[in-house]
Amino acid sequence: MGPRWKGKGAEVRAQADPMSEIVSRLKSSLIESNAHGLLSGCSVLLAVEADQSDLLNRACFGRLVVTAEKDKQWFQLSMEEAFYLCYTLKCLGIHGGDNCRKTSEELWKYMTDNKTTFPEFFKAYSHLRAKNWVVRSGSQYGVEFVAYRHHPSLVHSEYAVLVLTEGDGGKNGRLRVWSDVHCTVRLCGSVAKALLVLYINKCGHGDASPSCVTLYSVEERVVARWSPKDCREDVNGD
Amino acid sequence: MGPRWKGKGAEVRAQADPMSEIVSRLKSSLIESNAHGLLSGCSVLLAVEADQSDLLNRACFGRLVVTAEKDKQWFQLSMEEAFYLCYTLKCLGIHGGDNCRKTSEELWKYMTDNKTTFPEFFKAYSHLRAKNWVVRSGSQYGVEFVAYRHHPSLVHSEYAVLVLTEGDGGKNGRLRVWSDVHCTVRLCGSVAKALLVLYINKCGHGDASPSCVTLYSVEERVVARWSPKDCREDVNGD
Repeated sequence: MGPRWKGKGAEVRAQADPMSEIVSRLKSSLIESNAHGLLSGCSVLLAVEADQSDLLNRACFGRLVVTAEKDKQWFQLSMEEAFYLCYTLKCLGIHGGDNCRKTSEELWKYMTDNKTTFPEFFKAYSHLRAKNWVVRSGSQYGVEFVAYRHHPSLVHSEYAVLVLTEGDGGKNGRLRVWSDVHCTVRLCGSVAKALLVLYINKCGHGDASPSCVTLYSVEERVVARWSPKDCREDVNGD
Repeated sequence: MGPRWKGKGAEVRAQADPMSEIVSRLKSSLIESNAHGLLSGCSVLLAVEADQSDLLNRACFGRLVVTAEKDKQWFQLSMEEAFYLCYTLKCLGIHGGDNCRKTSEELWKYMTDNKTTFPEFFKAYSHLRAKNWVVRSGSQYGVEFVAYRHHPSLVHSEYAVLVLTEGDGGKNGRLRVWSDVHCTVRLCGSVAKALLVLYINKCGHGDASPSCVTLYSVEERVVARWSPKDCREDVNGD
């Protein structure tokens, strides 16, 4: 299918401003300011000033929360986003309700306790982010994530991402019957995305600590409808 | 949502020609001609002459198979359609490979052996047919069936139908996670159908014989997206 850029010049602008560099700048800025977020239910809230707000927006982490505060802007990060900034990029501290910084292990326990699919979802999220895809929630398309080649203001999302795990009896429960496959592929087609299925194989490493995640393997498969009219050789010879 | 009729006059034509009467005429005609179909894999093949071909088309049973034969037309019936004509309407015999007429019990065993979901799918099919809905395969929409108020030439299908069973651990495996619900509801919305979920409760009667099916109960639920802007009272007062 390929990327669908939004208007003329979008592709050139994206190439001139690689996502990897935007994320690098965000990382440096968060480390410099010793940034820390606050655990709040299934999200992490982060207060930043204008320059970091701009970087978070450009790197597509979290969403801006409207508040009455003038000098600070609040961002709501999903658990995957927060843990990626905290554990993978090591540029964000996260505090609990007691205002003490949580260790990676404490955060891991909190997040896996609150979301049983967190280990595989986080693996999928970080797998795509490490390849410089912009990853956002896919809930409006009935999938886990959508992946963009660059900022959503420049390009439409290219992949609808489902995360499945091998060997745990299909905790996620998707694509177990053909009708679900048909439904998902048809919906993806109607919104011009390819269905990317990430199979997470835990290779027997369990969920006990965040270091397990680095040992998981990821198999990527794009699922598409086979059209019977697709033919290897052109019968008409033209 | 309501029915979407195809063009002017379609609703009037449908009302003048109730589906119940078309099916009645088909039934009488098949009984009169002592019609019988032939089991062929997961379908039943039925050879008919022009007048019955017209009635099958108008009642929406099976699909016409293109053959070289001039005087006969072949229809391919799904297992649900064939068993409904055979067992419920008692107007069709079905023969096996040995050219002997199969009993209802033999057919039931054949069909449940070839499709584990046959008991609940047949219950759903016959439940809707008995209420004079036209029921066709929903595979292109990722659901079990679609239901039409009258013939598909007069009206678009109104419901996308998923069949779920209670108390067998979700053999069908649909709508077990939110992402599947989102995906299905969004797809149904985009093709202007309501999602009708038929919950089949076997009430402990098992699958041993076709008479069990009459003892199953059916609960009907329409699943729709809740739009946060839907408000019980109009804030603007207009």
